[in-house]
Amino acid sequence: MIGSLYAVHLGRVSDVSVLCRREEHARALNEQGLRVSGRHDFVTTLRAATVPGELPEPELAIVATKTTELEAAAASLAGRWPGAAIMTVQNGLGAEEAFGKRRVISAVTFMSGTRHSDTHIEYILDTETWLGPYAGTPYELVEEVAALIVRSDLKARPFRDLRPAQWSKLIFNATVNAVAALTGLPHDPHFAARERLDDLGHLVYDLIAEGKRVAEAAGIELLEDPWEMNVLATERGSRHYPSMLEDVEAHRRTEIDRITGALVREAEQHGVPVPLHAAMYRLVKGREASWSSD
Amino acid sequence: MIGSLYAVHLGRVSDVSVLCRREEHARALNEQGLRVSGRHDFVTTLRAATVPGELPEPELAIVATKTTELEAAAASLAGRWPGAAIMTVQNGLGAEEAFGKRRVISAVTFMSGTRHSDTHIEYILDTETWLGPYAGTPYELVEEVAALIVRSDLKARPFRDLRPAQWSKLIFNATVNAVAALTGLPHDPHFAARERLDDLGHLVYDLIAEGKRVAEAAGIELLEDPWEMNVLATERGSRHYPSMLEDVEAHRRTEIDRITGALVREAEQHGVPVPLHAAMYRLVKGREASWSSD
Repeated sequence: MIGSLYAVHLGRVSDVSVLCRREEHARALNEQGLRVSGRHDFVTTLRAATVPGELPEPELAIVATKTTELEAAAASLAGRWPGAAIMTVQNGLGAEEAFGKRRVISAVTFMSGTRHSDTHIEYILDTETWLGPYAGTPYELVEEVAALIVRSDLKARPFRDLRPAQWSKLIFNATVNAVAALTGLPHDPHFAARERLDDLGHLVYDLIAEGKRVAEAAGIELLEDPWEMNVLATERGSRHYPSMLEDVEAHRRTEIDRITGALVREAEQHGVPVPLHAAMYRLVKGREASWSSD
Repeated sequence: MIGSLYAVHLGRVSDVSVLCRREEHARALNEQGLRVSGRHDFVTTLRAATVPGELPEPELAIVATKTTELEAAAASLAGRWPGAAIMTVQNGLGAEEAFGKRRVISAVTFMSGTRHSDTHIEYILDTETWLGPYAGTPYELVEEVAALIVRSDLKARPFRDLRPAQWSKLIFNATVNAVAALTGLPHDPHFAARERLDDLGHLVYDLIAEGKRVAEAAGIELLEDPWEMNVLATERGSRHYPSMLEDVEAHRRTEIDRITGALVREAEQHGVPVPLHAAMYRLVKGREASWSSD
């Protein structure tokens, strides 16, 4: 879905190919192109296939799959297109490592959309994509990609070090996604309520505090305070449905391993106790197990 | 449901009346009596009404409603039947306080059944009811009631101090009910698994450990170790559906306030930190809020 938002926009300023999982998806895109509605409204012609061998070698490959499909995406690119830089756009931490020694750009995005069909996507939240170099990738390449994204009419911002932004989003996501998945609540004012003993905001606050202690131990100075991100979002009245809540309702495997799991493993490495995130991790894994016999 | 199990059995050795919430329930009981199947199989004739004024004054009133209906039950008995002793059979803590200065017997039960209709109940788990005196109630009365229950062909055991048993059950219930409600899992081997980092048994173990620290601070020596109760039950392969999981699936208000809530408030009173139980409390309350607009 995020990948389609990049494809439909970037197709106006460069040649774009799309690697699909399903044959009929690729066929539909080749025949009808991809339409965006919502904040923008146009159709882009592009090339699609289900195997990389049928696509021309790109300069940049954007990997915006869910983390649960990351390994499959990495496998299909292994040893292929050696000249291409890879931009990973994932929740959580550690997606970059799947691409070994290639030039990798780390990215996180706050934009959102809804998929209406194989060839139609709605652009909803027009917030920024943040990019930074991973390992030895030159910063100039990051600036170049950010500029390309901006020319395509999306919002982007290059960072010399993405980790302060990535970690702010990680802590926010680990907290809001897991709490939403377990309670069934969209991201609404319950997440900021801290008056009564049983108010949910206490838990949200404590989860974020745990996350901040891990960031500090990892030597990361957060770009934004995740608690302020939380309060602001609920005050704006977005009532956003976090993707993990959608996964749980559809009985799909969630991204908990790469989000909360990543945070819990980082905490362990740095010797920081995170009993609440560990609890959320185990509860969401338990929830997944409850429908594994479906 | 538990109330019906007492009624159908006690009706064989004494006169039993049933106070119902619904008019048609009372009518059906008066016309057809109450049938038990499963471990026992017989029909008992009894008297039923929706207002206490239509029933004869009893020597013993058993209050086995869910804790969410406890206040209503207490209100309907207020100032009525002054000579009757009250036996409360509830999950959690504090049910006795609803009955002011009367002679109260505290009880917890481990038996279970399934309600098939207004006049038919199945007796499934034939485990004991444990009884003890509350406040100034004489122990002899407790022994007398226990003996009556045993004569009716149910299992019962009198205690001079019920709190060690009550607290064992409280800690077990607070843990197993909340974890089941949030994960959707019945009480199965996931609750005892403690190998992988994301195994649910770690959380169950830690919740029980928190509970034990509260009991200790409250000066209670537990009758049984709730962790052993947990391991044993999952090894027996019961896959029991805790009532809180049923409540959550039916979008009914749960008993969390009287179970986990009671434990969290006791912990606060004794200055014992219980971050995990507080988290469970807030998550289940959040879950209730998610369907409050149903």
